[in-house]
Amino acid sequence: MNGDVGKLYLRDYLQKSDPLFEEYLQKKIDEAGKISKIPAELLKRFLETARRGKKIRGALTVLGYEACGGKDKETILDASLSIELLHAGLLVHDDFMDEDKLRRGLPSLHEQFSEFGFKVKVKSDSYHYGETMAVIAGDIAFYLSWEKLLESEFSPDRLVRAGKIYTKHVVRTAFGQGMDLTNTPLTGLNEKHLLSVLRLKTAEYTGVLPLLLGAVLAGETNGRRLKAIENYGLSFGWAFQIQDDILGMFGDEEKVGKPVGSDLREGKNTLLMLHLSQRGTREQRAFQRKVLGNKNITKDDVLKMRQILKDAGSYDYVVNLGWKYVEEGKNQIPLITADRRLREILESLIIYMMERVK
Amino acid sequence: MNGDVGKLYLRDYLQKSDPLFEEYLQKKIDEAGKISKIPAELLKRFLETARRGKKIRGALTVLGYEACGGKDKETILDASLSIELLHAGLLVHDDFMDEDKLRRGLPSLHEQFSEFGFKVKVKSDSYHYGETMAVIAGDIAFYLSWEKLLESEFSPDRLVRAGKIYTKHVVRTAFGQGMDLTNTPLTGLNEKHLLSVLRLKTAEYTGVLPLLLGAVLAGETNGRRLKAIENYGLSFGWAFQIQDDILGMFGDEEKVGKPVGSDLREGKNTLLMLHLSQRGTREQRAFQRKVLGNKNITKDDVLKMRQILKDAGSYDYVVNLGWKYVEEGKNQIPLITADRRLREILESLIIYMMERVK
Repeated sequence: MNGDVGKLYLRDYLQKSDPLFEEYLQKKIDEAGKISKIPAELLKRFLETARRGKKIRGALTVLGYEACGGKDKETILDASLSIELLHAGLLVHDDFMDEDKLRRGLPSLHEQFSEFGFKVKVKSDSYHYGETMAVIAGDIAFYLSWEKLLESEFSPDRLVRAGKIYTKHVVRTAFGQGMDLTNTPLTGLNEKHLLSVLRLKTAEYTGVLPLLLGAVLAGETNGRRLKAIENYGLSFGWAFQIQDDILGMFGDEEKVGKPVGSDLREGKNTLLMLHLSQRGTREQRAFQRKVLGNKNITKDDVLKMRQILKDAGSYDYVVNLGWKYVEEGKNQIPLITADRRLREILESLIIYMMERVK
Repeated sequence: MNGDVGKLYLRDYLQKSDPLFEEYLQKKIDEAGKISKIPAELLKRFLETARRGKKIRGALTVLGYEACGGKDKETILDASLSIELLHAGLLVHDDFMDEDKLRRGLPSLHEQFSEFGFKVKVKSDSYHYGETMAVIAGDIAFYLSWEKLLESEFSPDRLVRAGKIYTKHVVRTAFGQGMDLTNTPLTGLNEKHLLSVLRLKTAEYTGVLPLLLGAVLAGETNGRRLKAIENYGLSFGWAFQIQDDILGMFGDEEKVGKPVGSDLREGKNTLLMLHLSQRGTREQRAFQRKVLGNKNITKDDVLKMRQILKDAGSYDYVVNLGWKYVEEGKNQIPLITADRRLREILESLIIYMMERVK
C-alpha cells in the first residue's frame, strides 16, 4: 500500500469542494460589498490565499462522515467548508503571530494590508494596520466557519454535538499557539513540552477534530468507534505535523511556497531541532545555536544544516517517528469501519501524509 | 420615568451572574493549568479585566428571554455568560487594534503580556509578543463564548437558531471594526459612513444581538415581536454608543477607567467630532485638526475642546440625538410585551443608557 489512493481521495475532495468554497465566499464578498468596500476587500484577499489550500481537513471531515455510514454527501461536503474556513483563519492569525511574510506563494495577509491603498492614517503605523486587518480577517473566518456549520442541513441535535467537539478542539489549538509563542530558547527545549505544543497546536485540530466532526454529523454515538477515530486522527495529525517539519527544512521551495530555511530563520522549535540539540556533537550544536532564529543566514547555512541533520541521525529519527505514527494509525482502522474501500482510503491517506512533498 | 429601575435590573443581573462568571472561568483556568501554566495565565489575566465589566449585554440577553415569556431563569443566566465572553474577547482585540493602554483601570492585555515574565525570546520583540498573546486570549474568549452557548440546557433547535443570530451579528461587528480602523482623516469624515461604522461595530452587537438571542432561546417565533425587539435593541445600542462617546470626552476619569481625552488622543471618529467638523467655526475646526489624533495634547487642550464642543452646539446635538433614540426605543415597547413590570424595565433601562456615568 502506498499513498496513491489517499492522494486521489484528496484530489476528488478538492475538485468537488473548490467550486462550493469559491461560490460561498464570493457570495459573502458580494454581501460585504453592499456594506462597504473594506470588508469586501478583506474577504477577497482572504479567499485568494484560502483557495490555495490542500484542503486535507475538509476531506477528513467527509471521510469521518463516510466511515460512520453517512450517506448525504452533498450536505457533508457543504459542512466540511466550515473546517476549511477555520483552518484558513488560523493560518492568517498564525502568520501575523509568527511574522511570516509568505503563505502559499502570496504575501501573508498582514503584509498585504500593510501596503493597502484605502487607508489614510490618523493613528498608528502601516504595519500595525496590516496586522489589525489580518486579525479581523481571521476573526471573520472563525465566525463564518461557525455559521457554515450551523447552516448546514443536519439535525440541530447533531449540529450541537458537532459544535461542542469543535469548540473543545479550537480552545486547545489556541492554548498550543500561546505555548508555542511563549518561546523557550534551544537550550531549554524540553521534549515533553514540545510534543505537547505540537499536539495541541496542530495535530489535534488537523486530524482529530475534522474526523470526529464528520463522525458526529453522521450520527455516530458508539463510544468505541469514536475513540478509534480519535486515535487514528491523532496519529494522522502527528504524521502531518512531522512531514510538515521535514518539508520546512528539506522541502522544495517552489512546492512548499515558502523560502528554503524559513523554519530555521524563524527559530521554530521542531522535532528535528530538538533531536539535534540532544544528540548532536558539540560542533553541530554550536552551529545550530548560531543559525536557529538567525534572520541573516545564507542558503549555504541552510544546506549545511541539512547535512548536519542527516549526519546526526536527526532526519532519520524524525522520519521514523512519522512512520511509527502511520503504523499506529493503521492499527485503528479495523475498529473504525468494515468497509473495504474506506479502509483502503484511511490507510493510504495516512501513508500519503508522510509521502507528500507539499 | 428615569433610569433607576433599569439600573437596578443591571445590578441584580451583576449580583447573580458574577459568581457564575467567576466560577466558570476559574474552572477553565484550572483545566488550562493542567495543560500548561501559559494558557492558565492567559485566562487568569483575561478574567481580571472581564470581571470588571458592566455586563449590560448579559442582562439584555436575560431581558429578551423574559420579555418573550421565558421562565427558566437559571438556564438563561448561564447562557447569557456567552455574550459577556464574546464582549470581553472583542474588547481585548479592540485594545490591541487601537493600541489602547488601559481597560477598566488595568493595563490592557497586550500591554500586560508585553511585560510578561515567562518568555525568553528567540524571535520578535516583546511588544509583538504581547499583541499575539492578546489576540490568542480574544480568540479563546470567542471559542468559549460559543461553547458556553452550546452547552446551555436549551433544546438543540433553539440553540441552532440562536447560534445563527450570533454568527450573523459577530460577522457584522468585525466588518464595522475593519471599517473603523481603515481611518479616513477628519476632512474626509462622512456622516453616512461614520453612522454605518458605529452601528455595525457597536450598536448591533450591544443591543440587537443579546436581546434577540434571549428571545430565540425563549422559543420566540413571532416575526412582528422579533422585529420590535430588533428595533428596540438597535435604539438601545445607539443610546449606549452615543453616551459612550460623550463619556469618552466629558466623563470622569476615575469612573470611566481611562485617561481624560483618550478618545481625542486616539483620533477616534465620534459623532461629537463629526458635528464639530461640520458646524464649528473656522477657528474651532483649526483647533480640532490640531488636537484630534495628537498623542501629545495636554489636559488643558482637552478642557478647551470640551468648551468648544459646548460652544459649537455639538454636545447638545449629540445628547439630543441620544434621547431621540431613547424615544424611538420606547415606542417599540408596547409591541414587545404586555407585562407591566417588563415594560417598565425596558423603558427605564434604555433611559439609563443615557444617564449612566460609566
